[in-house]
Amino acid sequence: MDYQYNTLHTALDQGVLTLTLNRPEEMNSFTVEMANELIDFFTRINDDDKVGAVIVTGSGRAFCAGMDLTREGNVFGLDESLQPSLQELQQRGEDPMIKHGVRDTGGRVVLSIYDCKKPVIAAINGAAVGVGVTMTLAMDIRLASEKAKIGFVFGKLGICSEACSSWFLPRIVGIQQALEWVYTADIFGAHEALAGRLVKAVYPADQLLIEAQALARRIVSGKSQIATALVRQMMYRNSAAPHPRDAHNVDSLAMFYSSIGDGKEGVAAFLEKRETQFTGKASAMPSFYPWWE
Amino acid sequence: MDYQYNTLHTALDQGVLTLTLNRPEEMNSFTVEMANELIDFFTRINDDDKVGAVIVTGSGRAFCAGMDLTREGNVFGLDESLQPSLQELQQRGEDPMIKHGVRDTGGRVVLSIYDCKKPVIAAINGAAVGVGVTMTLAMDIRLASEKAKIGFVFGKLGICSEACSSWFLPRIVGIQQALEWVYTADIFGAHEALAGRLVKAVYPADQLLIEAQALARRIVSGKSQIATALVRQMMYRNSAAPHPRDAHNVDSLAMFYSSIGDGKEGVAAFLEKRETQFTGKASAMPSFYPWWE
Amino acid sequence: MDYQYNTLHTALDQGVLTLTLNRPEEMNSFTVEMANELIDFFTRINDDDKVGAVIVTGSGRAFCAGMDLTREGNVFGLDESLQPSLQELQQRGEDPMIKHGVRDTGGRVVLSIYDCKKPVIAAINGAAVGVGVTMTLAMDIRLASEKAKIGFVFGKLGICSEACSSWFLPRIVGIQQALEWVYTADIFGAHEALAGRLVKAVYPADQLLIEAQALARRIVSGKSQIATALVRQMMYRNSAAPHPRDAHNVDSLAMFYSSIGDGKEGVAAFLEKRETQFTGKASAMPSFYPWWE
Repeated sequence: MDYQYNTLHTALDQGVLTLTLNRPEEMNSFTVEMANELIDFFTRINDDDKVGAVIVTGSGRAFCAGMDLTREGNVFGLDESLQPSLQELQQRGEDPMIKHGVRDTGGRVVLSIYDCKKPVIAAINGAAVGVGVTMTLAMDIRLASEKAKIGFVFGKLGICSEACSSWFLPRIVGIQQALEWVYTADIFGAHEALAGRLVKAVYPADQLLIEAQALARRIVSGKSQIATALVRQMMYRNSAAPHPRDAHNVDSLAMFYSSIGDGKEGVAAFLEKRETQFTGKASAMPSFYPWWE
Repeated sequence: MDYQYNTLHTALDQGVLTLTLNRPEEMNSFTVEMANELIDFFTRINDDDKVGAVIVTGSGRAFCAGMDLTREGNVFGLDESLQPSLQELQQRGEDPMIKHGVRDTGGRVVLSIYDCKKPVIAAINGAAVGVGVTMTLAMDIRLASEKAKIGFVFGKLGICSEACSSWFLPRIVGIQQALEWVYTADIFGAHEALAGRLVKAVYPADQLLIEAQALARRIVSGKSQIATALVRQMMYRNSAAPHPRDAHNVDSLAMFYSSIGDGKEGVAAFLEKRETQFTGKASAMPSFYPWWE
Repeated sequence: MDYQYNTLHTALDQGVLTLTLNRPEEMNSFTVEMANELIDFFTRINDDDKVGAVIVTGSGRAFCAGMDLTREGNVFGLDESLQPSLQELQQRGEDPMIKHGVRDTGGRVVLSIYDCKKPVIAAINGAAVGVGVTMTLAMDIRLASEKAKIGFVFGKLGICSEACSSWFLPRIVGIQQALEWVYTADIFGAHEALAGRLVKAVYPADQLLIEAQALARRIVSGKSQIATALVRQMMYRNSAAPHPRDAHNVDSLAMFYSSIGDGKEGVAAFLEKRETQFTGKASAMPSFYPWWE
């Protein structure tokens, strides 16, 4: 597919698509346009079988310096007369007035990442503050440059950590660390992020993308697109289920449909001691997917 | 407000209230009276806008040496003829006979901390065993003195870890560490607590309260009371929700109502490069709070 | 009880039963026969009061080298015409055609471990790959030999990590580490497993069983069988509940029924400064157990 965006740059190499937030003059700060382009991207790659995994990074010195507060309407251009209720959001979330007039923009982006079939790696090359860091929480693995500066700075603006961060952050770092970071709203460095388990590893600035690409290659190489897409959704959704039997039911379907798909080739190749040649494509998932609908 | 208690001491300084468990002769052991006073305290501070955050510590050598087992009726004075069912507890939990005759006292305290609008820091200055440690699990951040001694000792008494610890402990330290501590019922030191991620940091005994106060000050200073109260409830409640969309709906409300409240001031101050002057008070939350009712 | 199995060996010593996966010629690889024997074992020990805790280890060099893919019918002998739906699995999971023709075999084993009343320690003595590691996720504490080799290798076979691993693994190691391991499908050593918090400790090969037995002894010694069985189910089930009040209701029942059982002896022994003599047996749980049915 052809990905042409005003705020994003894309480059595909051997199944790994590197997505660069590309407003370097404004430290890649987040705008409604960028949000809509990110949602378009994370939705369209679900049907792009050339893309096995995604790396997200920033152009220039920053990863993403948060919402661009200088642009009217980005955050606080909401219609104050609406006075939304929780029931409205739950029932009418797709109505344009609610969708664009009330719903959190960062959250709309994160939900499109959550639903994505492809593994997503954040390569945090510099400042990642506000929505610049909360958007990475739905990315599966975070790697950081030694120059990364991270902050859940919302509290300093009189607002709350958003973009579904209250769902994701405690699952990644535990509730104690999550609360400390959002309460203090401090900006911290890559090594504190590593100690707190927010990022998986820290690299010298000039090694970050090389390491991210090596990891992405290990994830893509010799794998079934369908198995990878299934396992991504299984991990997020089943880990939030009330009982392991909920996982068991989905596991059974994943095993069954693999047995008449890529799994058959995988086992044959293993027994014949040869390379696998998987033919399944994430654009054509087994009939039970999405099982949660 | 005026907090006068028999078993607790309070001191307010620059928005940080230090609550001291104050039965030093009995190692601050837990009684029904202390439980009722703790519930009263954590309920009343919700409407006390002078209190931005709470530190809980112990008077003398101990933090809290667990339930005072020498006092008849503290634990095992229950009416054996009641034979409660789960259905009764779920449906009639507020009936006095069930509330005082069946429900776990430590759990009633913990639920009042869970519902609290203010960040709570435990400064564990010495022995914290039994309910002395389980009550801290609902406090957001635990700091320990090098002299802290911690134990989920229930197993040695033929009883189970209580005070909602099976809900909180695995979220803080993971299920593997949680099970090891409750199975063995051993008493361990501050450094094992740190390695297991139960406490955030360990300090020399004479530095503990100084560090707790410094952290509390960072949490209170320049923050919106309303945003802090919202984010506390968002983190605990949304992290236990089945889908990030549940968080997204609440995030959207938090953003919307901030946009007509402290968030407007926060962004203006940011753009004008000046200090914020938030006017929102936790005693007057936005209309969507509490959203879970 | 008498445990006689083709694929398993059992040895009971002072309340600790060591269960050895016993197909050393085939690196203890997993078969349908082994699965059925494991389920039989983990079901029957619930009523065997001589067993206080279980250690699971492997005979010879391996712990368990995964599904034995050389045996027809072990994995991919499913009836392709069935085309199961999620609804069928949820509603007819115990029907023999679904149970044996569709449901994931590793998951059936794991669910029997999940429901077990006894603490279970995995002593990972060597290779633990595929279902060889996912089966350990429902064991409460994992210890590893320095020679352990662990891998969630499913992705290399075109299939997904199973055995309810998407429910358990993120609770043990966090979602970020879980995804990295299942995406890459790499095999890693004991020290990476420790750093990622999959295993609790790493020991020299000749110390592993000694340490596992010492830990099991600490868990069994001086404890109430009933309190231990209760706390195991409380931790797993309440940690997945939406609200701490769900834990509180169960805590209250656990406290109440302890007060007329082993807890009475526990407190008396504490006050009299003597050893406890608990008489409760896991084969005769209090009337509210299992509360989730």
